[in-house]
Amino acid sequence: MSRMDELLIRGVGVLWCVSDECRVLRDQDILVTGNRIAAVEPAGGVTVGENVEVIPGAGMLAMPGLINTHAHVPMSLFRGLAEDVDIATWFNEYIWPLESNLKADDVYWGMQLGLAEMIEAGVTSVADHYFHMDRAAEAVERAGTRASLGWTVFGDQGAAGVKRTASFAEEYDGAAGGRITTWLAPHAPYTCDDDFLAAVAGEAERLDTGIHIHAAETAEQVLASLEAHGKTPIQVLADTGVLDRPTILAHCCGVTVEDIELMAQRPCGVAHAPKTYLKLAAGSAPVIALRQAGVPVGLATDGPVSNNTLDVLESLRLMAMVAKHESGDPRTLTVGQALTIATRESARVFGLPDDLGHLAVGFLADLILVDLSGPHNQPIHDPAANLVYSARASDVQTVICNGKVLMRNRELLTLDKTEIIARVGEGMERLSERVPESRIQHYRS
Amino acid sequence: MSRMDELLIRGVGVLWCVSDECRVLRDQDILVTGNRIAAVEPAGGVTVGENVEVIPGAGMLAMPGLINTHAHVPMSLFRGLAEDVDIATWFNEYIWPLESNLKADDVYWGMQLGLAEMIEAGVTSVADHYFHMDRAAEAVERAGTRASLGWTVFGDQGAAGVKRTASFAEEYDGAAGGRITTWLAPHAPYTCDDDFLAAVAGEAERLDTGIHIHAAETAEQVLASLEAHGKTPIQVLADTGVLDRPTILAHCCGVTVEDIELMAQRPCGVAHAPKTYLKLAAGSAPVIALRQAGVPVGLATDGPVSNNTLDVLESLRLMAMVAKHESGDPRTLTVGQALTIATRESARVFGLPDDLGHLAVGFLADLILVDLSGPHNQPIHDPAANLVYSARASDVQTVICNGKVLMRNRELLTLDKTEIIARVGEGMERLSERVPESRIQHYRS
Repeated sequence: MSRMDELLIRGVGVLWCVSDECRVLRDQDILVTGNRIAAVEPAGGVTVGENVEVIPGAGMLAMPGLINTHAHVPMSLFRGLAEDVDIATWFNEYIWPLESNLKADDVYWGMQLGLAEMIEAGVTSVADHYFHMDRAAEAVERAGTRASLGWTVFGDQGAAGVKRTASFAEEYDGAAGGRITTWLAPHAPYTCDDDFLAAVAGEAERLDTGIHIHAAETAEQVLASLEAHGKTPIQVLADTGVLDRPTILAHCCGVTVEDIELMAQRPCGVAHAPKTYLKLAAGSAPVIALRQAGVPVGLATDGPVSNNTLDVLESLRLMAMVAKHESGDPRTLTVGQALTIATRESARVFGLPDDLGHLAVGFLADLILVDLSGPHNQPIHDPAANLVYSARASDVQTVICNGKVLMRNRELLTLDKTEIIARVGEGMERLSERVPESRIQHYRS
Repeated sequence: MSRMDELLIRGVGVLWCVSDECRVLRDQDILVTGNRIAAVEPAGGVTVGENVEVIPGAGMLAMPGLINTHAHVPMSLFRGLAEDVDIATWFNEYIWPLESNLKADDVYWGMQLGLAEMIEAGVTSVADHYFHMDRAAEAVERAGTRASLGWTVFGDQGAAGVKRTASFAEEYDGAAGGRITTWLAPHAPYTCDDDFLAAVAGEAERLDTGIHIHAAETAEQVLASLEAHGKTPIQVLADTGVLDRPTILAHCCGVTVEDIELMAQRPCGVAHAPKTYLKLAAGSAPVIALRQAGVPVGLATDGPVSNNTLDVLESLRLMAMVAKHESGDPRTLTVGQALTIATRESARVFGLPDDLGHLAVGFLADLILVDLSGPHNQPIHDPAANLVYSARASDVQTVICNGKVLMRNRELLTLDKTEIIARVGEGMERLSERVPESRIQHYRS
């Protein structure tokens, strides 16, 4: 990793998004001082000191490091174990029995595996929602990435559960030199009762932090909630005080028109993971209606058992295409809107709207260089369209987070892939054993 | 390129699909003699002569070279030029004016660009439907891939058009040492009248060859056809004799239940290009109903202006996910069904069911080695699921077509990417000029 004070990326194209319009500024120099962007100027215009590391940018496109606003990264351990099954079977016969096998060390190595995958795909930030998050934090510390971590708890854990997620948030906020922020992470309204949610909201207020939760994942869940409580899951979250806090609401495929109105008045954002919705036939989230109401939407992958990757560029492409398909109008969700969601709006959902998602002076230096020279991107008539519709994760050449280079010319500098894959492999047989009686929860929508 | 008589791939996993079930045979040797597979045996079981080139297969998965059953490859030249517009605008304001700029040399270089992209993505065969196909054939000859080529003609070209597509098919069938086959290629029922289609069908019978045509692309086209002719496009193709010939029907998002019954009695297959349907909001093709009726479905990309790539692995993934989404049931279109469509069924649509799409003795030696060692594919619980849901085009390491190595460890051996991209770049300004009055056709569904 670079030990120099400054980084200069020379002669690079810079993705520049303002008000849902994105264009590429050609031939720019980007100067990084410490962990922030100090200058973005036409090439040659930046004067630098002696102690500067120069990265050639010719032929590359610089864009903000991608932000994954909702994942369960260590589920990389279970990738490919639960295909072609319905949601209840997916939870009850696969995920929750599998997760009963999890040990803290598995989370440490599974998190590293997923972070390696994300760095290779240009993802520098992740809002992760899982167990043993002290060990996940250790992996983030090592990887050099940014993360907003929440320790998943269920209502049946009672006061101990509230304490679990709150004390983790309290202890780890600002860890890894400030790269780690924390949120409280109750699982979902259908697995947490009202008292539990209200207690979590109270803790979030006490700690002055946010809440990351699954909500209205499918229309079926919303109907079941209406039947059981006379309220939608979003109304439950409003009434228990959860939505008074900054909130990441994962999925929201089932939200109603009234829910969206209610969300528009609260400091919440929606994490959008279209690959999961397609694979699990969970419906589709009303991205356009949410944005029109002023609710920000961030890109997400969800966990690698439903996804089955952590590839945010793939989420970007699917979001735009599914929006067109569902509306029946190919003019829906333009390239500019899609890239704005992928950058500035994801930063807002992630909780760092003034620090992430834009390559301007003063923003944190989380940025990636994408190589568009491959035949699948040529010729380049419209580089913004390339990013949405033809670029692949493997086109990301160089990844910088918090001013440090984490990948250079596709070589990982902070994580040891060979060791990670070997360690993960050792636990495979134990992890893939399913004992349905030992599931950690039971799914009823 | 190898000049040896034999190729031996040692110790590789082999994808093996029978009756919609796919599994991976571990640790196999594959022997290629000339242009065919001579043996597939557990590792160490194959005895070879002296003149054999050995390719190590450890950690790799061998599968049949991917087959693209419908494309307009040279449209790679226009990639990214027509985003976020409706279908009529896409044709009338972009594609057809752009295509009026095309010269024969553009097709030669655009075809090479797309073939380079496809080889890098493991695509060894393409059914291409475009103009100046003599020059496209020259590119295929050079690339070493397999292609089924058809020269696109429109009804307003009259007898000269019929002659154009027929004489190309007659002259080029069996070209490039047998790697090129040909079909007649009228554009679509909505751009070719009944007499024209009947004349093409007559020529196809005389030449004992097939027909490749767009059909029932959207529900709107089908309604317009019913209004104008009292028949669906599929009925028009049946009544004009087109469907008496082996036929590739591209898209079919708008086919009716009666159309499917009619298609089931004819020697036709459907080319399925889901990325185009999503991007252009064209609806979705009834993949499940077609297969249940016995109509084979093959994977396709369509042209790189609607797609915007030629990535068949992406088509595979989108096909499976959209089928789940549309049916509302995640059990729809299993991994085994998806991979069967990608391999054996695409070979059937392509017209070579006994030669392509399966790595068994006697089949043509078109095969690719996929590296599943990257973090985004690890750990490997189910390699077939990896191929559908987590592998990327960039994981294809080695590509063999007709017994010859075209890419080794991601290095192209037959095409010169640098020269191709430079040549394509030279024509960019001229090609991207749009003069709507000089469009080659006018779209009315």
